[in-house]
Amino acid sequence: MKFGHFDDKAKEYVITNPKTPYPWINYLGNEDFFSLISNTAGGYTFYKDAKFRRLTRYRYNNVPVDNGGKYFYINDGGDVWSPGWKPVKADLDNYSCAHGMSYTRITGERNGVEAEVTYFIPLGTWAEVQKVKLKNTSGATKKLKFFSFIEWCLWNAEDDMQNLQRNLSTGEVEVEGSVIYHKTEFKERRNHYAFFSVNAPIQGFDTDRDTWKGTYNDFDRPDAVFEGEPRNSEAHGWSPCASHYLEIELAPGEEKDLTFVLGYIEVDKDNKWESKNVINKNPAKAVIERFDTVEKVDAELKKLSDYWSKLLSTYELTSGDEKLDRMVNIWNQYQCMVTFNMSRSASFFETGIGRGMGFRDSSQDLIGFVHQVPERARERIIDIASTQFEDGSAYHQYQPLTKRGNHTLGGGFNDDPLWLILSTTDYIKESGDMGILDEMVPYDNDESKATTHFEHLKRSFYFTVNNLGPHGLPLIGRADWNDCLNLNCFSEDPNESFQTTGNKKGFTAESLMIAGSFVLYGKEFIKLCQVLGKDDDAAEAQKHVDAMIEAVKKDGWDGEWYLRAYDYYGKKVGSSENEEGKIFIESQGFCGMAGIGVEDGLVHKSMDSVKEHLDCEYGIVLQQPAFTKYYIEYGEISTYPAGYKENAGIFCHNNPWIMIAEAQIGNGDRAFEYYRKVAPAYLEEISDLHKVEPYVYCQMIAGKDAFKPGEGKNSWLTGTAAWNYVAITQYILGVKPDYNGLSINPSIPSKWDGYKITRRFRGATYHIEVSNPSHVSNGVSSMEVDGKTIEGCIVPIQPEGTEVTVKVTLGK
Amino acid sequence: MKFGHFDDKAKEYVITNPKTPYPWINYLGNEDFFSLISNTAGGYTFYKDAKFRRLTRYRYNNVPVDNGGKYFYINDGGDVWSPGWKPVKADLDNYSCAHGMSYTRITGERNGVEAEVTYFIPLGTWAEVQKVKLKNTSGATKKLKFFSFIEWCLWNAEDDMQNLQRNLSTGEVEVEGSVIYHKTEFKERRNHYAFFSVNAPIQGFDTDRDTWKGTYNDFDRPDAVFEGEPRNSEAHGWSPCASHYLEIELAPGEEKDLTFVLGYIEVDKDNKWESKNVINKNPAKAVIERFDTVEKVDAELKKLSDYWSKLLSTYELTSGDEKLDRMVNIWNQYQCMVTFNMSRSASFFETGIGRGMGFRDSSQDLIGFVHQVPERARERIIDIASTQFEDGSAYHQYQPLTKRGNHTLGGGFNDDPLWLILSTTDYIKESGDMGILDEMVPYDNDESKATTHFEHLKRSFYFTVNNLGPHGLPLIGRADWNDCLNLNCFSEDPNESFQTTGNKKGFTAESLMIAGSFVLYGKEFIKLCQVLGKDDDAAEAQKHVDAMIEAVKKDGWDGEWYLRAYDYYGKKVGSSENEEGKIFIESQGFCGMAGIGVEDGLVHKSMDSVKEHLDCEYGIVLQQPAFTKYYIEYGEISTYPAGYKENAGIFCHNNPWIMIAEAQIGNGDRAFEYYRKVAPAYLEEISDLHKVEPYVYCQMIAGKDAFKPGEGKNSWLTGTAAWNYVAITQYILGVKPDYNGLSINPSIPSKWDGYKITRRFRGATYHIEVSNPSHVSNGVSSMEVDGKTIEGCIVPIQPEGTEVTVKVTLGK
Repeated sequence: MKFGHFDDKAKEYVITNPKTPYPWINYLGNEDFFSLISNTAGGYTFYKDAKFRRLTRYRYNNVPVDNGGKYFYINDGGDVWSPGWKPVKADLDNYSCAHGMSYTRITGERNGVEAEVTYFIPLGTWAEVQKVKLKNTSGATKKLKFFSFIEWCLWNAEDDMQNLQRNLSTGEVEVEGSVIYHKTEFKERRNHYAFFSVNAPIQGFDTDRDTWKGTYNDFDRPDAVFEGEPRNSEAHGWSPCASHYLEIELAPGEEKDLTFVLGYIEVDKDNKWESKNVINKNPAKAVIERFDTVEKVDAELKKLSDYWSKLLSTYELTSGDEKLDRMVNIWNQYQCMVTFNMSRSASFFETGIGRGMGFRDSSQDLIGFVHQVPERARERIIDIASTQFEDGSAYHQYQPLTKRGNHTLGGGFNDDPLWLILSTTDYIKESGDMGILDEMVPYDNDESKATTHFEHLKRSFYFTVNNLGPHGLPLIGRADWNDCLNLNCFSEDPNESFQTTGNKKGFTAESLMIAGSFVLYGKEFIKLCQVLGKDDDAAEAQKHVDAMIEAVKKDGWDGEWYLRAYDYYGKKVGSSENEEGKIFIESQGFCGMAGIGVEDGLVHKSMDSVKEHLDCEYGIVLQQPAFTKYYIEYGEISTYPAGYKENAGIFCHNNPWIMIAEAQIGNGDRAFEYYRKVAPAYLEEISDLHKVEPYVYCQMIAGKDAFKPGEGKNSWLTGTAAWNYVAITQYILGVKPDYNGLSINPSIPSKWDGYKITRRFRGATYHIEVSNPSHVSNGVSSMEVDGKTIEGCIVPIQPEGTEVTVKVTLGK
Repeated sequence: MKFGHFDDKAKEYVITNPKTPYPWINYLGNEDFFSLISNTAGGYTFYKDAKFRRLTRYRYNNVPVDNGGKYFYINDGGDVWSPGWKPVKADLDNYSCAHGMSYTRITGERNGVEAEVTYFIPLGTWAEVQKVKLKNTSGATKKLKFFSFIEWCLWNAEDDMQNLQRNLSTGEVEVEGSVIYHKTEFKERRNHYAFFSVNAPIQGFDTDRDTWKGTYNDFDRPDAVFEGEPRNSEAHGWSPCASHYLEIELAPGEEKDLTFVLGYIEVDKDNKWESKNVINKNPAKAVIERFDTVEKVDAELKKLSDYWSKLLSTYELTSGDEKLDRMVNIWNQYQCMVTFNMSRSASFFETGIGRGMGFRDSSQDLIGFVHQVPERARERIIDIASTQFEDGSAYHQYQPLTKRGNHTLGGGFNDDPLWLILSTTDYIKESGDMGILDEMVPYDNDESKATTHFEHLKRSFYFTVNNLGPHGLPLIGRADWNDCLNLNCFSEDPNESFQTTGNKKGFTAESLMIAGSFVLYGKEFIKLCQVLGKDDDAAEAQKHVDAMIEAVKKDGWDGEWYLRAYDYYGKKVGSSENEEGKIFIESQGFCGMAGIGVEDGLVHKSMDSVKEHLDCEYGIVLQQPAFTKYYIEYGEISTYPAGYKENAGIFCHNNPWIMIAEAQIGNGDRAFEYYRKVAPAYLEEISDLHKVEPYVYCQMIAGKDAFKPGEGKNSWLTGTAAWNYVAITQYILGVKPDYNGLSINPSIPSKWDGYKITRRFRGATYHIEVSNPSHVSNGVSSMEVDGKTIEGCIVPIQPEGTEVTVKVTLGK
């Protein structure tokens, strides 16, 4: 069952039934100022940090879900409704919500009135603009009472929901003309306030939420709206809000526009006040003036559209499969940019107050957006590396506002350092910027300890070398990529966090996933050294990589697949010897991608085992058989109900690792089969089961052991986006940046005839046409660049500004 | 405007209009298991710790307020309503909510059906019982579809509202017969589950919240209820709930009873399972069986009633003023017991996840409940003292589950130690138990460092002696009783907590409030030493107290009132020299109660200044003039809007300090006038303004500078309860335990003719009759004990079990 459709030309997903199985959302904003918005106008806005600078209030885990947002109400002669269906939930004659690239347009029509609201954050602006178009589609004059509504958050989102004994006494506002200002705590240490304006005279307002709606009413039945009478209330404590009231008359066929602006202002300490207790409104007025006509607003929308067209045009596919094209060209790239902006902080499943930027998370996200914003990727890499410790290990997370490591969440996730090699080498291959390696980068933000960024990578590599266990395999520490495989935790107290508790010393438990990662990114490190002419470094590193390969072959192979780990007691994890958890995806993915033992058929065997034991209708599950009881020596992974999350759920993040490993050994058919299973555009028809958005990846789909296999959760903020983008574009479609050119080496379904790709790379534009006359999956039989045949499958770097034609023919 | 009435005989407040200005709540439970319940059945239940063991989900700061609770729905032929008005909010023909002593009885009637629900937690039981009585008051047979509903919390209330990416996958339930079991995480580290049962066969059930109500519906319109069809849903993740469905037929006039039980079960680690994945239900069945007939339930209600009658009978007043009698005999004592149970953890203004037991808070609360439960007060004193540091200072708070100091909130509140002297001496005076002083009590929970409890008191006393500032006055540290007067904080960053930030070394800022406290409780310490025969200790301590008195007289007196403090720069705080904050209540209260300079008229002058500058229609404000800007050298106190909280709000907690000081100097009229202004029973008529419950104290009433003077906030959990109880019973009515007997020294309005008090004290019962033939305020002219005149005003201790008649006559 579908709840809307893709409009690929407009780059939109258009929802036509407001009652989606779960709120389907979009993100507004691209720099410092962001909003989350659902298909019924639920959501909230923040400046830079979703915890410390939240502008509007939002309640997570609410009943009903997604209650509260940027609402409009129309009282049409006593008949009250909202353009986004919610909050009033009056039936609409027409409804649509188009989620586009950083904007959302919600349209509702009822009884001869059409209301269209376009929400977006103009580039370079600390404000959300809400463009409202009201049209009389009836044959008679309409006199409408029109109300806006938002609820202010008292800035710190965590404190806002907990510290009521203080916060119910602090709220303060000002109203001047058509602008409502929120100035709670401005009197003291804050140098910022917020405002909500409309570009027309108002006939009333409200700023005290419960006066406006009535204490016992929900947002669906505010007294002021239903009675058609604003209270002109002035908030003093309790819950400040902002609601404009406008009386609007529309002749038959007439249309009127309004522009609302929800903004954030910072002022100098010495420039805060206009007069005693009256805030300095000049900076707000300047922002409001930028959007005070519909022409100005439309120009900003055009700029935003151009911005996205440019970003997305870096990689454009024409495959003949519209689902594939829309994933590759629009939605997967868009999601990657959202993970760049948000890391794991704020979604409808992440509250924005719990997590900062992950060392591992953000390093991985980067491989999905580096081609779009290489300069910003560079800054991110330096930010991440600056939180590394001198021994190469890392804080697991850092705070975006301070860019400092988060002590609360600690470190000891032994896979963390290796991801920095991945992100840096991917960045250099995309940009050609070797200079980043010479940047002086601090450790733990201590500038006095700064070394070159190359030295950071070296320490990342040697952190593993210096932390090997009894089998010569990497010690797992607190956990590796699988945060829930806690081999040193040994917790019996339900109040302990699995993520921060370590009751055992971590000197024995080893990870095959890190072993694979070390070989894979170790090879990248070696290659980088070679490119730099650091042959001694390369040779030294090669010894360690070779030793690791041998260790994996000797003690990391279970016969039909790679082991997952050795536990604290030295017992195998992910072995046929185990009763539950016999085979895991992560080590197959990473040892597979690293090609460990590929010459002996290990990778092929591993992949066949994945197919046999882990594949199911909706994707590849994380491990099998699912755990049915708590294993104290495994930790959190065994706590989930079978089929969910790490306990045999389809953890979409690691499915592309298998796609890549399959693609590398030439199994294009299987690689693409796996791709289709989790790519959201292919799941649109089963939206009622899948539940979350059909235009973005979710972190987890319930596995075959679950109560409801195929049900998705935790959409948007997941490394799934980056990894699937890399798997499809670089390994299946096969266009991959390298130091010396653009590598083209597809691994596709054999039935495909071919496809076209336009790729901007280091200033040139490559028009690539792949044809597959022999219907093979893999193997370039010939390649022509601007009509000239070249050897191998790397298109050499072409001069900036040139248009390059590349013809690739697959075959035996 | 009133929303109900007091029923003093039943010891109830009966609400007859469900739309109270704010939810008016009650507490159930007296030992390990507690519920909060509002007048519309909102609220939640927890075992011991409102953060770590929350059974049912509750959303603070919600819209509308108080959405979610222990709900019942009646579908009467398609007409749906709830006995408590909410959540359905269908109009009721009759409604009442009687909040009694640890029980709440909600009755609703509509269209010829009456439903009465009595909620309580039986003594010695980890379960809430909900006794439902349904009656057909119509002339025709009624076929009712009856639904129960609660929503499970996934145990840790803080994690439950934030960690959605995990928690939406973990929920697990079982249903057997008429019992719904909640077993999330039981598979792993938890040794506890919850259940919700009914003592009748059910015709259906639901355990998945959104299946039951529909994704986009609120609790007011659940699909299953409105369609009259349970879904028999089995929760797997998302939001587990428990709803029973019963079909009930009632002939005209017929009545039926049902008993629901919401319980908590702990099982041995080895005894968790009945069979694979099936929990051991035997302990739950044993609890359910205890309440499976209406007779058993009524017997438990009777036990509870007897329990409270006994507790409250320790002090019984007959004054002729029904408002005063109900405060003294019922509600103030009841509220004191609630503060004993809750400290500041869980109310409708405290979320139950932020604060543990306060060193200062719980020491003060104790003086209000020690006469009711002296044994439990003893345990509390030892718990508190065990978290003290060796130098006498203290953690500011400790966790009730672990009884260990809370590092996060730190220490450095320099008033903390002195409160231990107050609580201990009050305990000894009440109980006569000198043995507590010989108990070996650890420091910071380290048993190896244990000393006698007397030594703890001594270190408490000497902590002040060892931490004096430039004027020989006590250093304030992080803050004193006024958490918001932060003289060493100096914060410019809005993300810093005033409570835990100290940017200056605290070697200069001094507190007159601690000076008063030191003199007051120093005298208590000296008296205790004398009682113990420790004359050297007494003499040594006297020197320090004398020195402090001199220091206050020299540098702590502003001419018309006591100064409040010296700030970091050595400037006066609370002086006529200041522009704002010229006079503060705390130092007038404590220096006044300590009688510093009373011989020179200082106390009288101070009290007159309070009357002149701080008194207003609704009570005594904290300071004047209110701060209108941020003073970085004062901290949080200057951040609140004028008239709220510590910035010139009526902080009810410190009003009784003034009452006591006035009573001590014989101003009974003024003492009682202040008492009446904040005592909730006297505010019942202005409930629409006062907003919070008219049967319990609130922490703060908006002061004269506020937008809405008289509006109350933060009801229930406040030291206001204990202090007002002490002020009225011990200083105004004047019956006060002492080491050697019961002191009787009233200070009352001169127009009073007299009053009677029955007081149980050390096993004897004193029938006290005070008469005031000369209409004085103060001064005992004669006292007769069992007919014999005695000297002075202390009734010597009488043999246990005796009934003693005391006649007191006031006069010149």
